[in-house]
Amino acid sequence: MKRIAILGPGLLGGSIALCLRVAGGFHVALWARRPEAIAEINARGCADVASTDLGTIVRDADLVVLCVPVEVMGSVARDIADFLRPQTIVTDVGSVKAAVVAELSAIFAGRARFVGSHPMAGSEFTGLAGARADLFAGAACIVTPDATGDDAAVEAVSAFWCTLGCRVVQLAPQEHDECVALVSHLPHLVAGTLVRTVAAQNPRAFAVVGPGFRDTTRVCSGPPELWVGILRQNAESVCAALDAMIAKLRDLRQTLAPFSESGVRAALTEAKTTRDQITFPK
Amino acid sequence: MKRIAILGPGLLGGSIALCLRVAGGFHVALWARRPEAIAEINARGCADVASTDLGTIVRDADLVVLCVPVEVMGSVARDIADFLRPQTIVTDVGSVKAAVVAELSAIFAGRARFVGSHPMAGSEFTGLAGARADLFAGAACIVTPDATGDDAAVEAVSAFWCTLGCRVVQLAPQEHDECVALVSHLPHLVAGTLVRTVAAQNPRAFAVVGPGFRDTTRVCSGPPELWVGILRQNAESVCAALDAMIAKLRDLRQTLAPFSESGVRAALTEAKTTRDQITFPK
Repeated sequence: MKRIAILGPGLLGGSIALCLRVAGGFHVALWARRPEAIAEINARGCADVASTDLGTIVRDADLVVLCVPVEVMGSVARDIADFLRPQTIVTDVGSVKAAVVAELSAIFAGRARFVGSHPMAGSEFTGLAGARADLFAGAACIVTPDATGDDAAVEAVSAFWCTLGCRVVQLAPQEHDECVALVSHLPHLVAGTLVRTVAAQNPRAFAVVGPGFRDTTRVCSGPPELWVGILRQNAESVCAALDAMIAKLRDLRQTLAPFSESGVRAALTEAKTTRDQITFPK
Repeated sequence: MKRIAILGPGLLGGSIALCLRVAGGFHVALWARRPEAIAEINARGCADVASTDLGTIVRDADLVVLCVPVEVMGSVARDIADFLRPQTIVTDVGSVKAAVVAELSAIFAGRARFVGSHPMAGSEFTGLAGARADLFAGAACIVTPDATGDDAAVEAVSAFWCTLGCRVVQLAPQEHDECVALVSHLPHLVAGTLVRTVAAQNPRAFAVVGPGFRDTTRVCSGPPELWVGILRQNAESVCAALDAMIAKLRDLRQTLAPFSESGVRAALTEAKTTRDQITFPK
């Protein structure tokens, strides 16, 4: 797969384009909705061709990567379906998978080969301005094979993410959504709620924050509109994760008053021991 | 103040010593309980004199900095009180202040001049091995004047932390405890509870963690024993902070099912807007 079409020049689409240009040997075509974005893409030199015309970008592609918000994934998919050849492979970078995979699989059935993806990379920065060639280095990328069973397409998409520096993990779409609710969507809500709790209780405390508070809350500086979409599409799994978190916080509250040294120690030790065994990117 | 006695060669005590050595012009005396620690201090070259004998270390000091865990702060204070001159200034680095300041002020009354401090610097690393000369650069240090009203001592202690690169904020001991419960102790509990929630719900999710989960949970890899002590001493303020957090999480849960786009957007936007206005260290 040498001819790569990327739809959407945001943080992820832009970073994929930059990474492929650095790797070399690819023809990178980048679609953007807005003409001003085309100028920015050309100025940054991150594509061989950039256009606002979908047909121009996807017609000769070996692989099409949908890097648009999950809300518009379906409409963009419908707009390109007629331009694709049956052997064209299509993937996406949507943060939720069960709904997206069901919708896109149906749209591309018989017209192209779709396999869902979710690279677990990002930053609090957004747009092409935040894009970096090394955004995916060492990151996990979840590839979500569905019932269609096109193993060759799954292999090709997995190999593509490996080229970008990702470590590929395969999960069924539904388990993907449960897992990212736990390690991405729940932490986003918790980080934001921490900030809002301090603001409500005593905003003078913001004057004495240390690096711990900075890091614990970093993710909630991400773009609200993007997250509204993610949370809407994955609301069921996020609610289950949030209910479990609230229950654990209430249990922990019980160990603080009256103070149970053994209870507090057990919770802190379990958390540290568990976290110290996790393999983090980079 | 040129002759500085530091009691306890842990992350904070060791970093203070290293920073003073880099700054130059100070005589740094460092006390450790264990003889093996003295060898480590000498190998690292972070003190002019190191000893397990308290009298040797504090007798000629202009400033004594207590860098021992909060549980033993009182006993170490009693052990040194007889060696001090009335003009000697004493401070500490304890993470809780109302109880510590009350205890130490009583011990040093008429024997030395005590002012509490709490530098908001740290890391998930512990001990002298984790110490760094730049640990305090840009960090907030809370100085907690009490009813004794020794303004000159408060000034001297504030100037000392400025020398180490801190930005000094003054808070009364009780407000200090409420503020750090919100921006340090609560985040610690929340980070650990996030990790434990994932472990309980689906540990396979740990295979796909990204930098967001790494940063959101980083602080809970800190030493459990240290944190048991901190939480015990500040349990009342921590409970109030935790109750407020749980209430906000429950409210947020209500906006997810049935999904309230305006409710979710408002929470996410408030969090981002608030956090983006915080001035973080470095």
